[in-house]
Amino acid sequence: MTLETTLAAIRPADAAAMAAARELQGRLTKPAGSLGELEDISVRLAGLAAVCPPPMPEPAAVAIFAGDHGVHGQGVSPWPQEVTVQMVANFLAGGAVVNAFARQAGASLLVVDVGVASPIPVADDLLLDANVRRGTADLAVEPAMTLAEARAAIEVGIGVAGALIDGGAQCLAGGDMGIANTTPAAALIAAFTGAAPAEVTGRGTGIDDDTWAKKVEVVTAALDRHRPDPADPIAVLAAVGGLEHAALAGLMLGAAERRVPVVVDGVIAASAALVAAALAPDAVAAMIAGHRSVEPGASVALAHLGLAPLLDLGLRLGEGTGAVLALPLVAAAARVLREVATFDAAGVSEK
Amino acid sequence: MTLETTLAAIRPADAAAMAAARELQGRLTKPAGSLGELEDISVRLAGLAAVCPPPMPEPAAVAIFAGDHGVHGQGVSPWPQEVTVQMVANFLAGGAVVNAFARQAGASLLVVDVGVASPIPVADDLLLDANVRRGTADLAVEPAMTLAEARAAIEVGIGVAGALIDGGAQCLAGGDMGIANTTPAAALIAAFTGAAPAEVTGRGTGIDDDTWAKKVEVVTAALDRHRPDPADPIAVLAAVGGLEHAALAGLMLGAAERRVPVVVDGVIAASAALVAAALAPDAVAAMIAGHRSVEPGASVALAHLGLAPLLDLGLRLGEGTGAVLALPLVAAAARVLREVATFDAAGVSEK
Repeated sequence: MTLETTLAAIRPADAAAMAAARELQGRLTKPAGSLGELEDISVRLAGLAAVCPPPMPEPAAVAIFAGDHGVHGQGVSPWPQEVTVQMVANFLAGGAVVNAFARQAGASLLVVDVGVASPIPVADDLLLDANVRRGTADLAVEPAMTLAEARAAIEVGIGVAGALIDGGAQCLAGGDMGIANTTPAAALIAAFTGAAPAEVTGRGTGIDDDTWAKKVEVVTAALDRHRPDPADPIAVLAAVGGLEHAALAGLMLGAAERRVPVVVDGVIAASAALVAAALAPDAVAAMIAGHRSVEPGASVALAHLGLAPLLDLGLRLGEGTGAVLALPLVAAAARVLREVATFDAAGVSEK
Repeated sequence: MTLETTLAAIRPADAAAMAAARELQGRLTKPAGSLGELEDISVRLAGLAAVCPPPMPEPAAVAIFAGDHGVHGQGVSPWPQEVTVQMVANFLAGGAVVNAFARQAGASLLVVDVGVASPIPVADDLLLDANVRRGTADLAVEPAMTLAEARAAIEVGIGVAGALIDGGAQCLAGGDMGIANTTPAAALIAAFTGAAPAEVTGRGTGIDDDTWAKKVEVVTAALDRHRPDPADPIAVLAAVGGLEHAALAGLMLGAAERRVPVVVDGVIAASAALVAAALAPDAVAAMIAGHRSVEPGASVALAHLGLAPLLDLGLRLGEGTGAVLALPLVAAAARVLREVATFDAAGVSEK
């Protein structure tokens, strides 16, 4: 469960299984190619599992990583920091949007405190206390965390992936909660893709023009100050990232190690996916982009990773909501390869 | 169950329930507007049900209407006509893509023979024999059907909607099977929207340039010959439509009458939605566009109806597949209004 063990175990997608899936798609009782992007997903699932047809990606488990951010003090969000812990309590009570979506998808849910500023005042079976530090430092003035903390938070995510898969999960979805966490996400995306801060900084939960300008300024200044080197992903995370971003990267690495698909949510998860891909390029084979967030950085990150999002509904909530909504589509893609009859078997004439 | 009774019973969406849904969305524990198009869907569901929160659109029932087409003789499709009846058998055996997707969504499935050219050689509880005529006439040389047949096929769809809702369905999805049925769909869309045949004629199940040009020519000639008047929707259907198109229009009218949402699939269903809307403009309140088909006519029709599709996955299969894939999204939209906590109730601070 150390980072090095996980990175060493991540392998590329299996080309033979992918070829078999493409060939099978051509023999199923439908016009060739008529399932569009779902055919591509089915091929990727086969490549990840190294078998065609791939296993059903069910049941799915959702892990929501919560953390706080020193950069909140710069005025980058209109929401008070205590909303992070209040929303954790809302997740545990079942009252948040991601709870409703997880019930709809039949997915389990685990909330992980990896970096919340104050202790969670409730004990709950759905809550894992894996707090690495009580909120990051302000990335505008110093590194957000130490290298050891960044590594520890990644390993929290790897551990959660392993525990969920050991518990029977065949598909993971990662979510986030952390007031002000779109600011480190923008910094990570700029650092790994080379995009300009203004291109990858969005309105988050809904900010005005002045706050947006302040946010761009903070991201620009942080990149100038820390000069993060994308060839050293843990150093980038430590300088301008967040604890939930690190843990989400770990979740993706842990899923890739176990060859289980992991559905990527919005801009926080997409920035974490860049970290995971920088540490292990083959980890991208395990990633499925759930949706295209309104946040511009998410699209920049997904394009950099070569991932096409399944949904485009104008979502900008986080919590893993866009990943959870996509779970039935991922399952449907696998189900086609597993259940649909071939022309031969069904006695249907071809053109 | 006559057409006139149904049309007279269709009422507009309830403005008070829609206003209540919008107001409630603003109090739920999430940034205002952060669920994008799903918030709009939730508001429409409330308006249709005339209550906020709206009932859950579950269980869902899928009705697939099958028919054949005299215009097949013009060489508009590379597939032999007997594929229609072969695919009906595949549906009944559970081997088609729509079967796999319905299992994924937990939806029931009914196959309705409203116009197949030859008798279905199997009896099955999932098959309803409501054959109005054994395939349409060739719309390139004569009206596809009589006015009485068009009306009878619409009433088949109304009856199916009523029976499914009486059986407990809280949401309907309509699908189609009929080799060559994208040609009458293109003609219907051109007739109702005024778009040029080349703008609304697609590649269907995958045709080459020559076949596409032939298809455009057939649609153009049919419109020139019959000069269908969009103010007389049944006459348009009779001249250039299909029996499954008519029945799908009836399904939508029946759903609207009962104030149950009906998810619209691809180009066949979208062309049928134009017929339903021409007969009863308020029926659009019951329609939810499941996806944006690759077929260009589908987008033209949805734009004409003012409907934004939920999915855009490059699908072009029909069978109701794109509608069934969207069912969990529709359910998730309703679930938000029913289950998510308000800021007050959850004790979460606002910005």
